[in-house]
Amino acid sequence: MRLPDATNGDLVLIPTGLGDAPWTDYLPAAVQSRVVDIRHFVVENARTARAHLKRIDFPGTLRDTDIRELPIEGSEHELDALLAPALKGENVGLMSDAGCPAIADPGARLVARAHALGVRVVPLVGPSSILLGLMGSGLNGQNFAFHGYLPSAKDARDRRLRALEDESRRLTRTQIFIETPYRNEHLFAALLHVCQPSSRLCVARELATANEYLRTLSIADWRKTPPPMLAKRPTLFLLLA
Amino acid sequence: MRLPDATNGDLVLIPTGLGDAPWTDYLPAAVQSRVVDIRHFVVENARTARAHLKRIDFPGTLRDTDIRELPIEGSEHELDALLAPALKGENVGLMSDAGCPAIADPGARLVARAHALGVRVVPLVGPSSILLGLMGSGLNGQNFAFHGYLPSAKDARDRRLRALEDESRRLTRTQIFIETPYRNEHLFAALLHVCQPSSRLCVARELATANEYLRTLSIADWRKTPPPMLAKRPTLFLLLA
Repeated sequence: MRLPDATNGDLVLIPTGLGDAPWTDYLPAAVQSRVVDIRHFVVENARTARAHLKRIDFPGTLRDTDIRELPIEGSEHELDALLAPALKGENVGLMSDAGCPAIADPGARLVARAHALGVRVVPLVGPSSILLGLMGSGLNGQNFAFHGYLPSAKDARDRRLRALEDESRRLTRTQIFIETPYRNEHLFAALLHVCQPSSRLCVARELATANEYLRTLSIADWRKTPPPMLAKRPTLFLLLA
Repeated sequence: MRLPDATNGDLVLIPTGLGDAPWTDYLPAAVQSRVVDIRHFVVENARTARAHLKRIDFPGTLRDTDIRELPIEGSEHELDALLAPALKGENVGLMSDAGCPAIADPGARLVARAHALGVRVVPLVGPSSILLGLMGSGLNGQNFAFHGYLPSAKDARDRRLRALEDESRRLTRTQIFIETPYRNEHLFAALLHVCQPSSRLCVARELATANEYLRTLSIADWRKTPPPMLAKRPTLFLLLA
């Protein structure tokens, strides 16, 4: 355990936009001004990160900016090397491809190393599809769980859906999950097939973009409704039995 | 089931600041400009809501603005009356006392009625202590659950902590919970007493304010560390076994 050291820089957790909107749509002004002062970035994908930085009016040339990709299975040693500028007093920014870093992405290990090294961690306000979807769903926001991806094999997936629905009924818990975008329509069809008619399903697609679609219906009502267009579009599914 | 009707107004979910900061610290400009155009608000507490609206430079006199409190156990009929302006084509804003409405507060029932009445629901980007705490914790952001308040009686609370820790170990799940602020220090002491030395605990206090405190340590290391000041300060606890 190392104590936090005030001479260290911070690890700043930077949310990015969920679509193509101007930054004033999705970032507070104080967040933008904090980010444009950073010179070291750790990112999921360097190309996407450069596009994000351009969109928030990042000054100077991006070629001179230190942008490094986070290794998916990085060793502790590799992670510590990424945090080295913070130990020399400079801030390091962590960005994911979309939304909030360290949520539903591999960034949490870097944040954990920052805590272990005594580097202060500063999460900034910005868009998260999980949070926006939960707010907008009208499902239980006092007890909820995010499960990431469900199994892709049909039988395992259907068993999992039944288990999630049972647990939801027992605990009054909103169950939140995602799917690889090209399989969204299969998961939607499975939900209509497997779940009880009275369970409520929220489909939250392309949140915080011009194509936002957000609707909660009972499974019985979804079965009577033309299905939403979900193929290849980022979608969050929320279920409450 | 009523179909969404484009002539209806929207139910707009408005995040509010977690502390006393100026709005440019925590709201995107597009969110502020969307909110100042709204004339009907449903809120947790009218006095707090007026202070929030003043802070975001709400124009005109608040006396002329329709601000109604959300009944905690409101009937369907009462909720529908609150949404009546939306059925006449005017936007209705929903605000909680702090953070994002319909998450860890009673707003979700109004959102559910909006879906049932065919009123479009629009969640806006803003601060959520649950999300900021999870990002900043470095704990697992790919599987997490929010449990709200734990039981207040000692034995029931300790049993619950053990069960949450067991489940966290089994599922690699980050467990997130809160306590009434004046009991924060009791819950912190119980965590140090009940949990395994290797489990990691994040204490996230007064997030997105000048007094922000955010630290993750193993239970073993917390036992060796002077305890943070938590009494009467809003705090989120996150545990990963």
